[in-house]
Amino acid sequence: MYAISLGDDGAELRSLEPWHAEEFLAHLDRGREFIQTHIPFGANAIDADSARELLQAYADKRAADTGSLHGIWLDGKLVGGVLIRVFDAVHGNCEVGCWLEPAATGRGLITRAMRVLIDWVVEERGVHRVEWQASSANEPSIAVARRLGMTRDGVLRQSNSYRGVRQDMEVWSVLAPEWRAARARGAHKDH
Amino acid sequence: MYAISLGDDGAELRSLEPWHAEEFLAHLDRGREFIQTHIPFGANAIDADSARELLQAYADKRAADTGSLHGIWLDGKLVGGVLIRVFDAVHGNCEVGCWLEPAATGRGLITRAMRVLIDWVVEERGVHRVEWQASSANEPSIAVARRLGMTRDGVLRQSNSYRGVRQDMEVWSVLAPEWRAARARGAHKDH
Amino acid sequence: MYAISLGDDGAELRSLEPWHAEEFLAHLDRGREFIQTHIPFGANAIDADSARELLQAYADKRAADTGSLHGIWLDGKLVGGVLIRVFDAVHGNCEVGCWLEPAATGRGLITRAMRVLIDWVVEERGVHRVEWQASSANEPSIAVARRLGMTRDGVLRQSNSYRGVRQDMEVWSVLAPEWRAARARGAHKDH
Amino acid sequence: MYAISLGDDGAELRSLEPWHAEEFLAHLDRGREFIQTHIPFGANAIDADSARELLQAYADKRAADTGSLHGIWLDGKLVGGVLIRVFDAVHGNCEVGCWLEPAATGRGLITRAMRVLIDWVVEERGVHRVEWQASSANEPSIAVARRLGMTRDGVLRQSNSYRGVRQDMEVWSVLAPEWRAARARGAHKDH
Amino acid sequence: MYAISLGDDGAELRSLEPWHAEEFLAHLDRGREFIQTHIPFGANAIDADSARELLQAYADKRAADTGSLHGIWLDGKLVGGVLIRVFDAVHGNCEVGCWLEPAATGRGLITRAMRVLIDWVVEERGVHRVEWQASSANEPSIAVARRLGMTRDGVLRQSNSYRGVRQDMEVWSVLAPEWRAARARGAHKDH
Amino acid sequence: MYAISLGDDGAELRSLEPWHAEEFLAHLDRGREFIQTHIPFGANAIDADSARELLQAYADKRAADTGSLHGIWLDGKLVGGVLIRVFDAVHGNCEVGCWLEPAATGRGLITRAMRVLIDWVVEERGVHRVEWQASSANEPSIAVARRLGMTRDGVLRQSNSYRGVRQDMEVWSVLAPEWRAARARGAHKDH
Repeated sequence: MYAISLGDDGAELRSLEPWHAEEFLAHLDRGREFIQTHIPFGANAIDADSARELLQAYADKRAADTGSLHGIWLDGKLVGGVLIRVFDAVHGNCEVGCWLEPAATGRGLITRAMRVLIDWVVEERGVHRVEWQASSANEPSIAVARRLGMTRDGVLRQSNSYRGVRQDMEVWSVLAPEWRAARARGAHKDH
Repeated sequence: MYAISLGDDGAELRSLEPWHAEEFLAHLDRGREFIQTHIPFGANAIDADSARELLQAYADKRAADTGSLHGIWLDGKLVGGVLIRVFDAVHGNCEVGCWLEPAATGRGLITRAMRVLIDWVVEERGVHRVEWQASSANEPSIAVARRLGMTRDGVLRQSNSYRGVRQDMEVWSVLAPEWRAARARGAHKDH
Repeated sequence: MYAISLGDDGAELRSLEPWHAEEFLAHLDRGREFIQTHIPFGANAIDADSARELLQAYADKRAADTGSLHGIWLDGKLVGGVLIRVFDAVHGNCEVGCWLEPAATGRGLITRAMRVLIDWVVEERGVHRVEWQASSANEPSIAVARRLGMTRDGVLRQSNSYRGVRQDMEVWSVLAPEWRAARARGAHKDH
Repeated sequence: MYAISLGDDGAELRSLEPWHAEEFLAHLDRGREFIQTHIPFGANAIDADSARELLQAYADKRAADTGSLHGIWLDGKLVGGVLIRVFDAVHGNCEVGCWLEPAATGRGLITRAMRVLIDWVVEERGVHRVEWQASSANEPSIAVARRLGMTRDGVLRQSNSYRGVRQDMEVWSVLAPEWRAARARGAHKDH
Repeated sequence: MYAISLGDDGAELRSLEPWHAEEFLAHLDRGREFIQTHIPFGANAIDADSARELLQAYADKRAADTGSLHGIWLDGKLVGGVLIRVFDAVHGNCEVGCWLEPAATGRGLITRAMRVLIDWVVEERGVHRVEWQASSANEPSIAVARRLGMTRDGVLRQSNSYRGVRQDMEVWSVLAPEWRAARARGAHKDH
Repeated sequence: MYAISLGDDGAELRSLEPWHAEEFLAHLDRGREFIQTHIPFGANAIDADSARELLQAYADKRAADTGSLHGIWLDGKLVGGVLIRVFDAVHGNCEVGCWLEPAATGRGLITRAMRVLIDWVVEERGVHRVEWQASSANEPSIAVARRLGMTRDGVLRQSNSYRGVRQDMEVWSVLAPEWRAARARGAHKDH
């Protein structure tokens, strides 16, 4: 029942739950090829049961406070989302990520949603370091990291194997003081 | 990060989670005697660990889609909450309940929160029957059931044992068509 | 190896266990349509494996002291049974039920078996309240409740969904003092 | 609620369950030294919780069809019992055993109870081989094996370590055809 | 990465692990009929998944310190192995066994591997009694027991059911002092 | 029973198992302060039970093929070890690490052990990328990475919180082709 408005265009952020399985599957089916260009997100979710399984995995992560999944709805239609892939309350670290179907790109939805998410982990949950990982070839993803004011920590050479090819994975991060300083400078507004 | 405004007085509804344990405990400690007049809600939550255990039990219910816990914050202070004690998506049934610390009574907070909750289970989750159970001696709780337009289905004679005394438990309910009809009549507004 | 004679006609009550799966299945197959007129008892038990699963679920309940399943054998043939669907030793409550294949009706088998069962929960296990639930349309079941001296506590309106139709469920109960008083009056003998 | 009469002296066999914990503990406390002369049966059961744990372990075995525990009550007092320590329905094997408090010895209670138990595993459960293990020093236990018509299969040299001393364990057994033949000869009657 | 040389012929002993599944399956396929003459070892391992399951069961035993599986490689080819079927550190007992594909018989591989294994359980792990079980009809297995200096403790009459026939199982054992004495006498060398 | 010689000085590598708990604890107690200068390895292992717990966690990882722990023994005394902290057979990645008590430093033990370990993951297990993480302040650890021919992939800024201070963590790695090339050049010999 909870929702957070992401702006005047009707975009909303909501927790994405197992009972959304059919809606989630339909969304994946619209964007599958695009979403999975660089990462396997949703690759196992090919019918209602397997879609529910993916959502259940995140519902369990949420219950264990080790991650969460949030959908972006545009005019009542699920078009993508942001997620906390790893959450470590003890050490104050988390890794975040995102996905989007092609029809919803170009509107800054991910950036807007990520700001809500990062504000929350930093201010409410005491996270010190927010990490972002992306294949070096995934330019849109790296552009988001840059737009969020993140710094590139390094490149994990050939650390991922996707579709038979080894990918370099870039690691970006923003630390809590950096996040707050950027917000104070209003840097968050000009995207 | 999600919140639902319950009105102009700053009251908000949020998911109540394991990481709220200390805040939840402080709230219980303020209202323990009052809250536990008729029911044992929170009786086992007597320190941070046991408070977290109670919250974790509901986090697990939520992950399993069998219940959920929602806190009511008034001016940023947790003062009570509403809960789905039992949720059965297959049969379209649920049982809801509530608790409040004394300082927050008399403002209709529970009724406002319950309306949000029942709207959601009925309209989003397809629940047909929303049940409410209260000890016959628990007049405030029965008053809430009445205010929500519920009907008394019966009295489970001496079905509960609390503090060494057997209590009659009243069962009240509202069905989805009744809920919608009442809302259409605007009955929900005059509390 | 244990058995309790239910009378001079050779009827016996025994614990119904996973290793009875084939016998249980054959019995269900003889009475399936009749047994499932009002309730789904045994609906999932359609072969030896699924029959064993149902029996295993009750074996597990018994081990956890939360329920049990007891078969009625007539001339060495399993013809029905009684069960403790819910057992709560802490609060002194239980819910009991029954089923029978059509060829075995009209002999008072259920009433006889239920008396043994209720005597045990009340006198040996300290149960204070024995509950019985039946669809309002299930007249034979309600007749058993009445014959056992139970009182109707109420009607849970449309609380069950069976075969696509919502059923009103009646709740009946007998309390330990009532049970003992009735037994003292010999009311248990005239069935 | 089930009980099997073991004879005219009021001795009865019943399933021994977790809810008997206090009664079981009191019995153990009366016979502890005697019972544990050769074997550690009940050694961990030193208060209500640990007694319940032992009984729960057997309740779980029973649910898994891998063993069971049966108490012998004499004039309503638990005085000992027989048990299926290992039950293997697939291979048709089981290992049985017994224990008794000293005040109840000399009446043939164990032999009577074991006959009921072996009859059941052989005739109802299809067991082909019933095994009995006893320390070579445990003469009363070996006498029971002999009285039950068992044959000594061998001696597992120093296979058990009890109270710091390695014991030779004798293995005795009776096969289903032997059991039936002995019963037919009435051999079971003279104890 | 660990290996123990079993002699000058290139035979080696290594832990046999789940990731060896395909190699293990190929080996079983070469020796299936021979290996399963008397015992069902590997009978369920008929493809890569089921082979991995068997290996995983032993990986789990090893983690729990209740058993382990060791392959014998001859010229880099898995040809059989030895195993600790049961390991009981608390009581200082274990049961060991072996299997071999036909092409690798006649070289004393099992005896050599067993000596390494028994040395380890006796000297490193404090085992007092090493047990060996074999069907009376399994002459090669009994010959190994004899060659290892074991004593026949007895015959568990008809205790095993294999391929529809009940087998007598012989129990052999060697105790730690016997093992050490035999080694001192150099008895281990003449095989 | 398995061991790998690490050279002429009697150093050996062995799997480090739960039953080594007391030996492991004694070793930790000798080196605790030194070992935990930069990382919390062994910090929770303060008595036999907690030491066993740490070893059991790695025994479980090994059974799940997600990691393993290997001790280095010098003249029969456990002085340190190497470990596969993360093992991902599907993606061909692993992260390795090490620890040593002060008395055993300066002999190249870690480098020798790591070479055995990396050879195995690369050649036997098909790992493509071997990762090493160390606090920027942990010069000896970084020196090992350099000696193993690893490349620094980056610095995860303030990603670790240890003893109340946030540490920069360096990520180093070597890829399978690099490892093989270095070995071919004999680079592995000059340490």
